[in-house]
Amino acid sequence: MKVSGRPTRTIWPSADGTAVEIIDQTRLPHAFAIVRLATLDEAARAIRAMLVRGAPLIGATAAWGLWLAMRADPSDAALARAHAALLATRPTAVNLRWALDRCRARLGVLPPAGRPAAARELAVTICDEDVVLNQGIATAGLPLIRAIAVRKAHGARINILTHCNAGWLATVDIGTATAPIYAAHHAGLPVHVWVDETRPRNQGASLTAWELLNEGVPHTVIADNAGGHLMQRGEVDLVMVGTDRVTATGDVCNKIGTYLKALAARDNAVPFYVAAPSPSIDWTLRDGLKEIPIEERSEQEMSQLSGRLANGTVATISLLPEGSAAANPAFDVTPARLVTGLITERGVCAATAAGLGKLFPEHVAV
Amino acid sequence: MKVSGRPTRTIWPSADGTAVEIIDQTRLPHAFAIVRLATLDEAARAIRAMLVRGAPLIGATAAWGLWLAMRADPSDAALARAHAALLATRPTAVNLRWALDRCRARLGVLPPAGRPAAARELAVTICDEDVVLNQGIATAGLPLIRAIAVRKAHGARINILTHCNAGWLATVDIGTATAPIYAAHHAGLPVHVWVDETRPRNQGASLTAWELLNEGVPHTVIADNAGGHLMQRGEVDLVMVGTDRVTATGDVCNKIGTYLKALAARDNAVPFYVAAPSPSIDWTLRDGLKEIPIEERSEQEMSQLSGRLANGTVATISLLPEGSAAANPAFDVTPARLVTGLITERGVCAATAAGLGKLFPEHVAV
Repeated sequence: MKVSGRPTRTIWPSADGTAVEIIDQTRLPHAFAIVRLATLDEAARAIRAMLVRGAPLIGATAAWGLWLAMRADPSDAALARAHAALLATRPTAVNLRWALDRCRARLGVLPPAGRPAAARELAVTICDEDVVLNQGIATAGLPLIRAIAVRKAHGARINILTHCNAGWLATVDIGTATAPIYAAHHAGLPVHVWVDETRPRNQGASLTAWELLNEGVPHTVIADNAGGHLMQRGEVDLVMVGTDRVTATGDVCNKIGTYLKALAARDNAVPFYVAAPSPSIDWTLRDGLKEIPIEERSEQEMSQLSGRLANGTVATISLLPEGSAAANPAFDVTPARLVTGLITERGVCAATAAGLGKLFPEHVAV
Repeated sequence: MKVSGRPTRTIWPSADGTAVEIIDQTRLPHAFAIVRLATLDEAARAIRAMLVRGAPLIGATAAWGLWLAMRADPSDAALARAHAALLATRPTAVNLRWALDRCRARLGVLPPAGRPAAARELAVTICDEDVVLNQGIATAGLPLIRAIAVRKAHGARINILTHCNAGWLATVDIGTATAPIYAAHHAGLPVHVWVDETRPRNQGASLTAWELLNEGVPHTVIADNAGGHLMQRGEVDLVMVGTDRVTATGDVCNKIGTYLKALAARDNAVPFYVAAPSPSIDWTLRDGLKEIPIEERSEQEMSQLSGRLANGTVATISLLPEGSAAANPAFDVTPARLVTGLITERGVCAATAAGLGKLFPEHVAV
């Protein structure tokens, strides 16, 4: 999507062919900075410190990280070490394991000398596939927005609430939850996005608002507390979020606070859709609440926040009284019963084993 | 309650008898600053700019504001002007109208010369009554916490989640939602409070955490997004919040985001109690969603935030990309069906017209 009018992806090989480059998302929206990752350690750190984040982009960065590792040492031992190091960076998103397992399976059967080139090719493929998956989600999700437009008065704005960032910054390009939104906007539908700020890391206020602004999509940032009230007032037509992991039964793990919005959507008969590309589906799990590991991140992410001072420089402030503790669970699980539908690259389905099974019969246990 | 070990109220007449003094709550938790209010305008500004906030304290400050007005000019016209000016400061809390109408009724029948002394006496009375009301809430609410202690393993911590600040800083002293918590803590029960940060103004992180810290009550600050997840994990035994206005039918208006916590409490069978002193009950209303005006506050409260820099000074940072809009509804309404009970100074009752009618028969329409 566009940054200051220029089409941009979130990750790409460097021009000199020896590294990969990313946008440092921890510096958005205050600075657009590109960071070069030249080693496995740098790739792992970029994921862990959330320079890159979002389940699909984590997977793509891990694939590039394996390439960096293979360039340095293509041995079996190095492959195993790199797989383990990258897998340990973040626990919740399943795309990470999906990408790493896929790369290891492909590379493991090759002689070491062939691994660097194959790893590079696979990283390029995973990135390009991600874009195609998201185009599929755009195609599948757009009719949901069109249907709302048809029901409303001509020209009345269509209010879509989203949580966290499941935009192009969370993927290689286009985004998951934003894919149908961008498609609707480009098709001329009057969409307006309620952007949940998404404390504690403010991915909504920092990233989703920034990318909607760059793409020219009307939007309003709100406190995470406000969505229920807006739904009660009829000011939300649709909730659209992304996911870090969906179980085979349709339970949805996503950024902390998603569950509260799903409850409010249900209470106000607002459709609640989850954009779920197939690499986000964990076919091995049946119970999201019991089985998905929830990352507990640093207390400091709650107690401190960064932003622009009046002079334009970026500063970090402390919010709590000295002596008060904080807790920071990063994700929650929305039970399938609260999900109106999953938007996958193959179409929209019910958040049930049967619904997913119809779209992905190759994954149904026989 | 205690500030650095010293018993303190939120509002008191100045030692020289010519003004009233308050804690500037916009500077907490980073600085404890006392501000002197010597005129009606200063009192109105203190309410509007939220140097004082919380429904009961707004009412108490308004009563003192009328005294300041009567000292300057005790005429009928000045009384009417002062009533109108103070009433216009904040729209949502009903305590404001309750205190102002009570003062006007009392003062209006007096000759102007008698009004300053009577206004002062009434302000003192309203403050002292507030403390007594909150003691009543403590007495009524403590058994709810004791009952949880009895059910849990001996010594296991009792986890109470609260939203915003309905602590002593929101009242003259003791607080409403915190009254049973302080009572339980002082009775030796092992209470632990999950403090919702409460964006956008962070009253939880700034005020509730600060007062619990000063009183020695164990607590952990969490993002507003986290409460649902904690309830799903069984880590919340009870939700206890305050209110700015309760309808005669039990609908509860409170800080934005309260409704989302009530939904999560219901979904996880966690009791959801609202501490509601009778001045917060609006006996004229039957439908909270339709009838309670919701204050829309400045966009800047969403887009900027203040905190301590590493050097100890307080700075304000901007959070949003330049060009993104924000919205800031300050309250929401939790329908009575989601409220387990109301804790009033006369006891706990169902959040229904019948429940309230039993405790307050004098307000039941005949």
